[in-house]
Amino acid sequence: MSEKFSDEPKRLAETIVPLFDHQAGEFVPVSSSNGDRVELTAGADAQDDCAVFRLVGSHDLVVGSDYVRGPKFRLYEMGHLDEYDLGYYLVAANLSDIAAMGAKPIGLLSVVRYPPDMDDALFGFVMKGIRDACAVFGCLNVGGDIGGAERLILSASALGVCPAGGALLRSGAKPGDVVCLTAPTGPAGAAMAYLRAGSTDPAIESVLPSLLASWKRPMARVDEGLVLGASGAVTSCQDTSDGLKATLESIAELSGVGIVVDEKAVPVPEAVAAVGAHVGADPLGLVMGDSVDFELVFTIPRSRVDELAESVDFHRIGAVTADRGVVLARPDGSRTTLPGKAWRHQSGDRRA
Amino acid sequence: MSEKFSDEPKRLAETIVPLFDHQAGEFVPVSSSNGDRVELTAGADAQDDCAVFRLVGSHDLVVGSDYVRGPKFRLYEMGHLDEYDLGYYLVAANLSDIAAMGAKPIGLLSVVRYPPDMDDALFGFVMKGIRDACAVFGCLNVGGDIGGAERLILSASALGVCPAGGALLRSGAKPGDVVCLTAPTGPAGAAMAYLRAGSTDPAIESVLPSLLASWKRPMARVDEGLVLGASGAVTSCQDTSDGLKATLESIAELSGVGIVVDEKAVPVPEAVAAVGAHVGADPLGLVMGDSVDFELVFTIPRSRVDELAESVDFHRIGAVTADRGVVLARPDGSRTTLPGKAWRHQSGDRRA
Repeated sequence: MSEKFSDEPKRLAETIVPLFDHQAGEFVPVSSSNGDRVELTAGADAQDDCAVFRLVGSHDLVVGSDYVRGPKFRLYEMGHLDEYDLGYYLVAANLSDIAAMGAKPIGLLSVVRYPPDMDDALFGFVMKGIRDACAVFGCLNVGGDIGGAERLILSASALGVCPAGGALLRSGAKPGDVVCLTAPTGPAGAAMAYLRAGSTDPAIESVLPSLLASWKRPMARVDEGLVLGASGAVTSCQDTSDGLKATLESIAELSGVGIVVDEKAVPVPEAVAAVGAHVGADPLGLVMGDSVDFELVFTIPRSRVDELAESVDFHRIGAVTADRGVVLARPDGSRTTLPGKAWRHQSGDRRA
Repeated sequence: MSEKFSDEPKRLAETIVPLFDHQAGEFVPVSSSNGDRVELTAGADAQDDCAVFRLVGSHDLVVGSDYVRGPKFRLYEMGHLDEYDLGYYLVAANLSDIAAMGAKPIGLLSVVRYPPDMDDALFGFVMKGIRDACAVFGCLNVGGDIGGAERLILSASALGVCPAGGALLRSGAKPGDVVCLTAPTGPAGAAMAYLRAGSTDPAIESVLPSLLASWKRPMARVDEGLVLGASGAVTSCQDTSDGLKATLESIAELSGVGIVVDEKAVPVPEAVAAVGAHVGADPLGLVMGDSVDFELVFTIPRSRVDELAESVDFHRIGAVTADRGVVLARPDGSRTTLPGKAWRHQSGDRRA
C-alpha cells in the first residue's frame, strides 16, 4: 500500500470535510420544556473562523481543555494503542471534564498536529477516532486546528451546557455527606504497571484486554453526570483523571472539609489485585494513585443517597467530615494517609 | 539569579492562582438592553474541572482553536520574541478568530506545556503574556491545561458571543459587494523575510521594531469586528491569519462568488516595500502572501460602505463578482492571478 502525504488544505478537503459533513443537521438540539434550547448553526463543515452555537434561554455553559501527549503517550509508543485509539482517548478525556460538571456535551474543538511521517491514512484514523468518540458521547467535533509539527500533538477543548445554576462544582461538599464513586478505579494504572514491568503472566494476559479498554475506549461518565446534575442533590463532583487520591484531596480542599475513606468500601477489581501481586505493588495504591480512569467522585447528603441509587450505579466509599484532611479508615479502626502516588505531572507525565 | 523548577501543583499554586485570582469579580458582564446577558460564574481560580459561564437570553456562541508552534516559532528561536511575547501572541491569534465572527470575546482556555529547561520565571512570563493580552482584548483566561512536555507547546481555544443571528460568516458575500480590509497586511511577513535573509540594512533596522510589533503585540481586531457585526450590513468576514490571498480565496469559494482586487487600492506599507527591495521580493507578494497580520477582510453592499466608514477604518480593495475566481486588476487594465505564496501549512509551518 503506497503512503500518501497531503498538505493541510488537501487533508481538510479529503479527510475532514467528508468525515464532518452536514454537522448542523446531525446535531441533536438540547431543549427543555420551558423553551430553552441549544442549536449548532455552523460546525466544522462550515469552514469558518469559528463554530457557532445558538443558545436561547438560560444555560450554564461549561468549558475545559485537556492536552494528551503524543509520543510520550507510552502505550502508543509501545504499540498497545493505535492512532484511532488516541483520537478516541482525546475526546473521552475532554468530555470527562464536562461529565464532572453534570453537563450535556455539545461540542469539541480538536487540535491535531501531525509529524512528517504520519501519512494521510494514519491522520484519517486519528480523526475517525475523534469523530466516533464524539458520536458515542453525544456531541460533535465542531472545529479546531490541524497541521504539521515535529511530533504528534493532540489537544482539545470541550463545551457543555446545563440548566442555569445546575453545574456541579468541586467546592460544595458538606460534613456528613456521603462520598461516592461511579465505578472502580485502578484498571488504567494497572495496565500501565503491568506493561511497564515487562514480564508476562498468563492469568493477567487473559484480563489485559479489559484493563487496556480503559485506554482504548475510555468511558467518560456523561450519562451519570447528567443524572447527578438533574438530581439537585449532589454537593460536589470531580472526575478521577488525576487519580482517586488527588480527586478526594481536591474536593476536600476546595470545599474546606475533610474526608474519611472506608478502606473496605473501596472497590478493588480482581484484575487490578492480580497486577498488584505480579508487580509487587499494593493494589489499593493502584486504585488510589495516578490511574486515569475517568470515573466520577461526588458527595451527596446521606438522606438523598438511596433515592439517587435508583437511577445510577455507584459505590459509597466514605464520608465528609468537618475536620480537615483526607484519611483512610482501616478495617481495624486505625486511620492512616491514603496510599498511592500523588498527582504531580512531573516532566509532563500526566497520564502514563 | 537561581533558577527554580517547580512541579505542576506548585506552578498552579504559586504562578497561576495569583495571576488569575478573583475572576468572576473581574469579568465584565455582557449585557444588552433586552436583558440578555453573560456572566462568569466559575473561572480558572475556581480550580474546577471546567469554567462556567451563565448565558441568559439569546446568543450566538462562537468557539475556535489555534495552536501556536513552540520552537518552530522561528522568531522565538532566533531571539526576537520572548516567552511573554509568545503568551501574548497565543491570545491575539485566538481572539482574531472571535473578532472575525463579529463577536465579543468572553473567555480563553490555554494549553501551556513546558520543556524541562523552562524554569518558573520563564513559565510565569508565558502566563503573564496570556493574562495581559486577555486584558487588552477584554476577556479572561478561564482555564486550560498546564504541564511538562519535551518542548514548549502553546494552544488555546477562545469563546465569544454576539446577538443571535449576528455572527459574521465567510459565506455571505454577494456580487456587487465591496471588499474591504481593516489595515495593511504584510508587516509580519516582511519581518520574517528580512530576519531570515540575515543581511542588515540600516534603513530597515530603524523600522524593524514596528514590523516586529506585528509578532510581539499583534492586534486582534476585536473592536472593529464588533462594529462590523453591529452594522448589520457586513455580508462576510474572515481574518487574514492565513494571508490576504488565502483569505480572499476562501471568502470567494465559500460564498460561491469571485473577487476582483484593485492593485492600486491594496495598501503597501513603506517598510514592507523596503524589505521587498532588500530581499528581492515583490512587495505585493509580501502583502498578499503568507503574512500573518490578523487583519479582517469583509464584504459589504456598496450602498452601506460610506455609512460604515464613519465608525471604523478600512481600505476598499476590490469588488465581489458573479464570475468565480479571484483576480488582480492591474493599473493598465489587465487581469492576473494574485501574487504571493498560497496557504499551505506544509510541514506545519503555518505562521512563520
